[in-house]
Parts: sequence; C-alpha cells; structure tokens
Amino acid sequence: MTSPRTLEGSSFEVVLHQPEIPQNTGNIARTCAATQTPLHLIEPLGFRLSDRYLKRAGLDYWPSVVLRVHRDLESFLRQWAPRRCIFFSARAETSIFSFRFEAGDCLVFGSETAGLPHSVLDGAHDRVVKIPIDRTRVRSLNLATTVGVALFEAMRQVMARRCGVSAACTGDG
Amino acid sequence: MTSPRTLEGSSFEVVLHQPEIPQNTGNIARTCAATQTPLHLIEPLGFRLSDRYLKRAGLDYWPSVVLRVHRDLESFLRQWAPRRCIFFSARAETSIFSFRFEAGDCLVFGSETAGLPHSVLDGAHDRVVKIPIDRTRVRSLNLATTVGVALFEAMRQVMARRCGVSAACTGDG
Repeated sequence: MTSPRTLEGSSFEVVLHQPEIPQNTGNIARTCAATQTPLHLIEPLGFRLSDRYLKRAGLDYWPSVVLRVHRDLESFLRQWAPRRCIFFSARAETSIFSFRFEAGDCLVFGSETAGLPHSVLDGAHDRVVKIPIDRTRVRSLNLATTVGVALFEAMRQVMARRCGVSAACTGDG
Repeated sequence: MTSPRTLEGSSFEVVLHQPEIPQNTGNIARTCAATQTPLHLIEPLGFRLSDRYLKRAGLDYWPSVVLRVHRDLESFLRQWAPRRCIFFSARAETSIFSFRFEAGDCLVFGSETAGLPHSVLDGAHDRVVKIPIDRTRVRSLNLATTVGVALFEAMRQVMARRCGVSAACTGDG
C-alpha cells in the first residue's frame, strides 16, 4: 500500500462513539494515519484531546490524521447520510468475514464498556457485524484491535474485488 | 466462531520476541484468549508477568490463555522446529494479504521499538511479511493491532480454504 493506487482502497471512515480510554483512541489514530482513513469522534469523550496518553499512543502521527469531532451520533449520521454506516457489536449475528464491505462505508464502533446504544443497533440489524471470537472466554477484543481487524478486512475485500489477488494491489512492495 | 468446528481454524501460535510494553502484551493475551491461540513470550521481557498494567489489559482473561515463556528465540525455534515460522517486519516486501498462511504456522512478532533481529529476518526472507501501511506517515502499527490484524487474516485464509465462504465457517451465528 505504498502507491497512491492501492491507497485508494482504504476509502473508509472510522467512527468512535463516546470512546473512554485515551490509549485506545491514540492507537486507533495511528492505524488511521497509517491507512489514510479519516477518524470521527462522537462526544462525549472520556478524555480531553490534549490527554498525554492519547498523544503518546498516537506518537507524532496526529498531524497525519484527518480528525473530526461531532456533538452526538445523530449529528454525524445526519451530516454523513449518503454514506452507508456499518455498526460493530460483539453480539451481532453476522461476521465481518461474510459481510460485504463497500468502499465509502463508515465503520462505527461503540465505547469500550457500553458498546453502541441498542436504539442504534435495533434500527440497523442488517448492517450490524462482529469479529468472530470465543465469547465463552472473552466478552470482546480490545477496541483498538477491533478497529484494526475490521478496517483491514474491509480494505482487503475492496482491494481483492478491484484488483483480484495480484501482488500490486494487495500491498506488496 | 462459536462452535468447536470453526475454532479449529485458529490453530496458530503467536510469538512475541522481547515485548516491552505490558499493555500491548495484555491486549494480545486477550486476543489470544478470544481465539484460543497459544501465546509464547521470548525473554527478556520489558516487564514482569505480575505487572498490573499487563493484568489490567488482559483483564480476567489470563486463565484462558495458554502461555509459554522461552529463554531466547533459539530455544523456541529449536523446540518448535517442525512448525513453520512466519516473521513480521514493517520493512518486508510481501503483504499478509498475498502470503499464504497455513494452519499450524507460528506468527512471530518483534519488540515495539527494535522489531525482529536482522539475523532472524535475513535467514527467512521468503517467510517475512508485513501489514501494508503508508510508511511515509507511520513507521508501524501498534504491536497489539498488528497481532490482531495478522492473526485474523491467517485464520480467515484457513477458514476460507477449508469451508469456502459459507456462513457457518466464517463465524456467523
């Protein structure tokens, strides 16, 4: 993914609803910078944007992150209405590996402790997906890990459909 | 991945060479517990296994983690010699999305600051892979994010080959 052509494949938006732990948001910002993916934070946040843990986890990558902060989820959804939103929930039925992501999708993740509100999930059940894990042992993955796994799977799908599995488009080089 | 059948797909080993940051290893342990993946730590570690950040990041998942600690990488490689080792490096040529993972592979990750030793990478160049990112902006992803993305891609490949893309084998339900 070092050429502009393959970077087009990362045309997703990452949306964090009321994130609580600054290190997680910092690590997610690093992932977003590394993939040229815009990052949206939905208030209230569990930290200030000046938090030192947030800065440290994002290291000096913040200047490379396209960051937008929204007052609430409704504002975000209204403003970005033409774009399709995919909601992540550990309780979803559908795995990210059987769901078909499309370039332009907004990937929306809930907070570390509460997840996404039921009101949001109930109204979008055909666009609620999970990363398949053994939930008898672990309730969910770490939020930054979840975002990384989901974003790269979405990017992989789009790249694979656009280019087949040729090396040039899967990020070799 | 809630049935034993699909969990067989996660038959990988995660190996961390001299990890430095306890929160990262804690989050990786959580990912390993969630996927029933054994975790190997190669000494020296940058923390004690009793570290409170390590425990907190892994929450109460540690009892579910099959953990082994090894004195050095040579000991590990000698002991696990029949298994194929795949080494991760941000400077690799080959992307995880064009590399063919096989069930049983050991996925070996370097430390947060130093990566894997050149002596290891030089001797295994056809088994050195990367997660494709824009390295003009970010040197590497967070280690826990790297492990999550790599492990789920390896699992996805094995599941897809074993079962096609049927819902039952991609973790739905």
